Amino acid sequence: VQTATGVRRIAKHLGKASVHIDVTKVMIITKARDNSLVYLTRDMARWLMDRGVVVYVDAKLEKSGRFDAPTLTANTPARMLRYWTAEMATQKPELFDLVITLGGDGTVLWASWLFQGTAPPVIPFALGSLGFLTNFEYHDFGKHLTKAMTQGVHVHLRMRFTCTVFKREMNPETGKRDKHHSKIGRHEVLNEIVVDRGPSPFISMLELYGDDNLLTIVQADGLILSTPTGSTAYSLSAGGSLVHPEIPAICVTPICPHTLSFRPMLLPDSMTLKVVVPRKNSRTSAWVSFDGRSRVELKSGDYITVRASKFPFPTVIRSDMDYIESVSRTLKWNTRELQKPLT
Amino acid sequence: VQTATGVRRIAKHLGKASVHIDVTKVMIITKARDNSLVYLTRDMARWLMDRGVVVYVDAKLEKSGRFDAPTLTANTPARMLRYWTAEMATQKPELFDLVITLGGDGTVLWASWLFQGTAPPVIPFALGSLGFLTNFEYHDFGKHLTKAMTQGVHVHLRMRFTCTVFKREMNPETGKRDKHHSKIGRHEVLNEIVVDRGPSPFISMLELYGDDNLLTIVQADGLILSTPTGSTAYSLSAGGSLVHPEIPAICVTPICPHTLSFRPMLLPDSMTLKVVVPRKNSRTSAWVSFDGRSRVELKSGDYITVRASKFPFPTVIRSDMDYIESVSRTLKWNTRELQKPLT
Amino acid sequence: VQTATGVRRIAKHLGKASVHIDVTKVMIITKARDNSLVYLTRDMARWLMDRGVVVYVDAKLEKSGRFDAPTLTANTPARMLRYWTAEMATQKPELFDLVITLGGDGTVLWASWLFQGTAPPVIPFALGSLGFLTNFEYHDFGKHLTKAMTQGVHVHLRMRFTCTVFKREMNPETGKRDKHHSKIGRHEVLNEIVVDRGPSPFISMLELYGDDNLLTIVQADGLILSTPTGSTAYSLSAGGSLVHPEIPAICVTPICPHTLSFRPMLLPDSMTLKVVVPRKNSRTSAWVSFDGRSRVELKSGDYITVRASKFPFPTVIRSDMDYIESVSRTLKWNTRELQKPLT
Amino acid sequence: VQTATGVRRIAKHLGKASVHIDVTKVMIITKARDNSLVYLTRDMARWLMDRGVVVYVDAKLEKSGRFDAPTLTANTPARMLRYWTAEMATQKPELFDLVITLGGDGTVLWASWLFQGTAPPVIPFALGSLGFLTNFEYHDFGKHLTKAMTQGVHVHLRMRFTCTVFKREMNPETGKRDKHHSKIGRHEVLNEIVVDRGPSPFISMLELYGDDNLLTIVQADGLILSTPTGSTAYSLSAGGSLVHPEIPAICVTPICPHTLSFRPMLLPDSMTLKVVVPRKNSRTSAWVSFDGRSRVELKSGDYITVRASKFPFPTVIRSDMDYIESVSRTLKWNTRELQKPLT
Repeated sequence: VQTATGVRRIAKHLGKASVHIDVTKVMIITKARDNSLVYLTRDMARWLMDRGVVVYVDAKLEKSGRFDAPTLTANTPARMLRYWTAEMATQKPELFDLVITLGGDGTVLWASWLFQGTAPPVIPFALGSLGFLTNFEYHDFGKHLTKAMTQGVHVHLRMRFTCTVFKREMNPETGKRDKHHSKIGRHEVLNEIVVDRGPSPFISMLELYGDDNLLTIVQADGLILSTPTGSTAYSLSAGGSLVHPEIPAICVTPICPHTLSFRPMLLPDSMTLKVVVPRKNSRTSAWVSFDGRSRVELKSGDYITVRASKFPFPTVIRSDMDYIESVSRTLKWNTRELQKPLT
Repeated sequence: VQTATGVRRIAKHLGKASVHIDVTKVMIITKARDNSLVYLTRDMARWLMDRGVVVYVDAKLEKSGRFDAPTLTANTPARMLRYWTAEMATQKPELFDLVITLGGDGTVLWASWLFQGTAPPVIPFALGSLGFLTNFEYHDFGKHLTKAMTQGVHVHLRMRFTCTVFKREMNPETGKRDKHHSKIGRHEVLNEIVVDRGPSPFISMLELYGDDNLLTIVQADGLILSTPTGSTAYSLSAGGSLVHPEIPAICVTPICPHTLSFRPMLLPDSMTLKVVVPRKNSRTSAWVSFDGRSRVELKSGDYITVRASKFPFPTVIRSDMDYIESVSRTLKWNTRELQKPLT
Repeated sequence: VQTATGVRRIAKHLGKASVHIDVTKVMIITKARDNSLVYLTRDMARWLMDRGVVVYVDAKLEKSGRFDAPTLTANTPARMLRYWTAEMATQKPELFDLVITLGGDGTVLWASWLFQGTAPPVIPFALGSLGFLTNFEYHDFGKHLTKAMTQGVHVHLRMRFTCTVFKREMNPETGKRDKHHSKIGRHEVLNEIVVDRGPSPFISMLELYGDDNLLTIVQADGLILSTPTGSTAYSLSAGGSLVHPEIPAICVTPICPHTLSFRPMLLPDSMTLKVVVPRKNSRTSAWVSFDGRSRVELKSGDYITVRASKFPFPTVIRSDMDYIESVSRTLKWNTRELQKPLT
Repeated sequence: VQTATGVRRIAKHLGKASVHIDVTKVMIITKARDNSLVYLTRDMARWLMDRGVVVYVDAKLEKSGRFDAPTLTANTPARMLRYWTAEMATQKPELFDLVITLGGDGTVLWASWLFQGTAPPVIPFALGSLGFLTNFEYHDFGKHLTKAMTQGVHVHLRMRFTCTVFKREMNPETGKRDKHHSKIGRHEVLNEIVVDRGPSPFISMLELYGDDNLLTIVQADGLILSTPTGSTAYSLSAGGSLVHPEIPAICVTPICPHTLSFRPMLLPDSMTLKVVVPRKNSRTSAWVSFDGRSRVELKSGDYITVRASKFPFPTVIRSDMDYIESVSRTLKWNTRELQKPLT
């Protein structure tokens, strides 16, 4: 029992860590097609190189007239400016001491998508209004980066899911799908996995297992398995609760369920979930997507497994109140003029 | 990061433990006023004493004609049958190797109420249909108790809250309430703490703090702070999600909030919450209750603190699926005939 | 069938009427205890008397130094300024061509409370921000009243409920409550009737009948029967839908129900509902309130009936969009910055 | 005001009518592909012809070996058995005195789909458990039909929507879509119209107008416009209230809206709604479907209009309690064992 309290105290600090990082190589992620972002990326790269930091920008910018690499490196050793590719992020994440994202929450999700294994600390800058994940204002980037480079950063290790897709193999002799399954993909997910009916007009029927026990049969437009980070995204629209990102839980939220009693449920992140398209009784296939990307069709007998990833996604935080502030700001959570005195 | 996975694995097993207990002294808790329960308590006491176990029953039964202690101990050493009082539960919990509750979920809550410090393992027997907390059928008690005594029990350490009530002191000179607060009570809570408007027709306004940061101002009929165990009780009625009891979280669920955006939120159980009746702007006092008991009035400036208790409440579990089964059974969670084929 | 379309067309205009009223006598309703309101009432009375209109103000203002009636009537015939009492509103509503309320939605509810039979058209002025019912700004009162007096007003006949309370009589011989019921009160209600557990810690059990058929047994913290006008008030907090005030419906909304399937339901306003505290199985009494006023205890066997009133409450509207505007303004209904382009 | 009460009383009986119908020609609608249904259709046709009633069955059965028309008419004038086509239902509804549906709620929706103008009274028989719309048991069909033919039927005129689809025309010269719209379809709808994102991964943005006033901009997975009849179907899954089918209302229910304040709203059925895919800001097209059928793509600038139809759908009712019974039965609305006494 004493131990329980002890572990709780450790766990309290597990998700958060103060890290001193020696910032010598920085990766900047942004939507390379957006013109204004190209100029802002250029400014930031300039600022970093002036301080002796090697900068990696999107390889798509190498030939960009707007980005104008030649001018940028006119007075700087050319090796200070390098170009990243998706392969480098997946295979050599240790190339980057720090990742800067420039854009909205979607750009942070993209950064998570790029780092399918270990991920360096990410500092997310917002251009306009701050979002859930983008808690640093661009116009103050000098101040924030200076502080990060001199004093280190506080990092929140956001839980991700590892989701693996299994499909029934085609029997080469019979031309039919047989009982064996082969693993056809693995994804690290920061917000949520959605299994839905896709373009089909019919509802999905799905079996949900937890540690190989049947939890329930889902009849709904779809099923959301969300991380706490994702609890403010699609899961919330579908009626889920807000879940603080330090809570080790998997949010199971049905989309338009066909029973009134199918309330959202939170399960421990130590559980392995499995979502199966049943062999029988399923009139239709289902579609799975990962952080809104890479839709894959699941046919009768196919399934996915979902578990807490061993590769969390470290994002830089400003204060312990980041989460509450982002919720108040972005959702107007419980914001209203105070009730006036009785008149 | 490796550590994170490790701690998660430990935490997975933290809430559950296989305990071999040497069962020599058992406490039976039941509603002493219910006649049929008195007879069933008697049968169970008989069964236990026949197996050499010392049995503690409610001191109210000592003189009960229905319980008929003299006949019960006719052929047994009188010291085998003893009588418990509330004081013994609070001050000498080590007197009891095992606690048996006989009744509904309310009886389990009462057991938690009795053990305000360390609590022995509790095995909850239901008389009629099983409940959320009462997962053992009375009619099989012999089988279950034999197994517990010979093979040990699996125990789930249910998180409780420690809630402390602070009220402003009365200044003896001025006769007014001044700025100093005194602690007027402390309660261990298994399900939930409710702060509501009580008999007042006006809504409560409450300030909610987490680790001394203002999280939000609550305008609602009331506020529920629920443990995961309590997430299937009042919090669910008020719109909260179902939360697996192994998740270390505090469920913040408003009752009939006055803003459409005040969704239920889950906070980490490492946080200390504080609910304050504001000095200004509050037209009314509020009332706090603990697992539905012991209503206390909070006036302007009074407050409560809520934190995860260092005294969890160990209940005996039957299988890892206890929780899902209790939810399906009791709430009919997502239970419906499967959709029939199209006709 | 043709008739159906015809009646629908009539019904469309039934709730709204363009009325030319000869405004010679106006009643002003406000909270007489609020000092600033007293001055504003005085200004409005002055303005009206200057235009030859007889003004009735709250009898509580007759002796008010702040209101200063003598100065106000110094240059005006004294009979231009008169004083209303609650009795006059109930018994002689024809005394008033138009009612002005000055304050918040609560003041409009109070006006409805005063006119327990026929009600004159009511034009509700808000002091600060507009509310659901208060759709005219005070600072423009001259413009609005001039228009009302010269061009007439568009009036919306808001449905009210007639609620009658029946209690079991005390048998004078036995001193016990017997089977006969006597009518102990009748109330016209503009927003809602709430039956709840009052100060009791136990939930209510209530039987709900529609046209003498048992609809359901309610196990909940309470039950709200709301008019469409009231659907933006307490019913909304408890999870009800927004209902346009022209829809002839009764909103049945449970408060924290104990079953997940007890969704809010709308019933036709041609139905007579009855809410009964059951003779058996009810551990507790219930309490009924009317637009938040006049709480009455209901004991075992007592009941209330609720039906659409034959005395609607006419409020002056500005445009057909009043309702949607009030909802957007007051609830921030679906208000959010448009999603920004992908960045 | 008196009139209001009068119209309310008329309206009460408007939706329900006791009709004596001279049943000489009956149409049977069923899924012709389901073998067991073919046999049951045959039995019912036999029963009706034996009583001198002309029976119309699906033209697909004419050649069916299972239906075996030749044997069926062996002892009956061949003109007693006729075959209906979709065209006959649309163009000559007066051919049928009564329509019998055999199957589930889907078959009743199909009957509504067939009768796009005036619809004869429909008596819906369920094969298995009764549904929302299928309130007559097949095994008692003799009793029910005898009663209908001798005593007449009580009919409930269910409101339908008339939904018209407008698309921007292609300019033949420029090859671009210009500002003119052409009407490309009109549908009578019994349950609901759904406008959603279809196969697109991006959310819809839709403008909702009521009587040409902008009510709101919808950012959601989709929007449901449901009749009261449809309020127990998709709208309920998406969080809508239950609406008694006699209430003249349009249920506006968003699917997974992106703002927490977008609550379901009920609008008067005298309103004409318009849903527009905006010219700007819309990243994607939307898809509209009618009672789950006939999906049509809406591109930027296209729109639909929705209004109460002048062709209601008359279904035979058994008692005034049909609705409540169907809700309790099918949704288990608020069904739970009564709370046991405290133990």
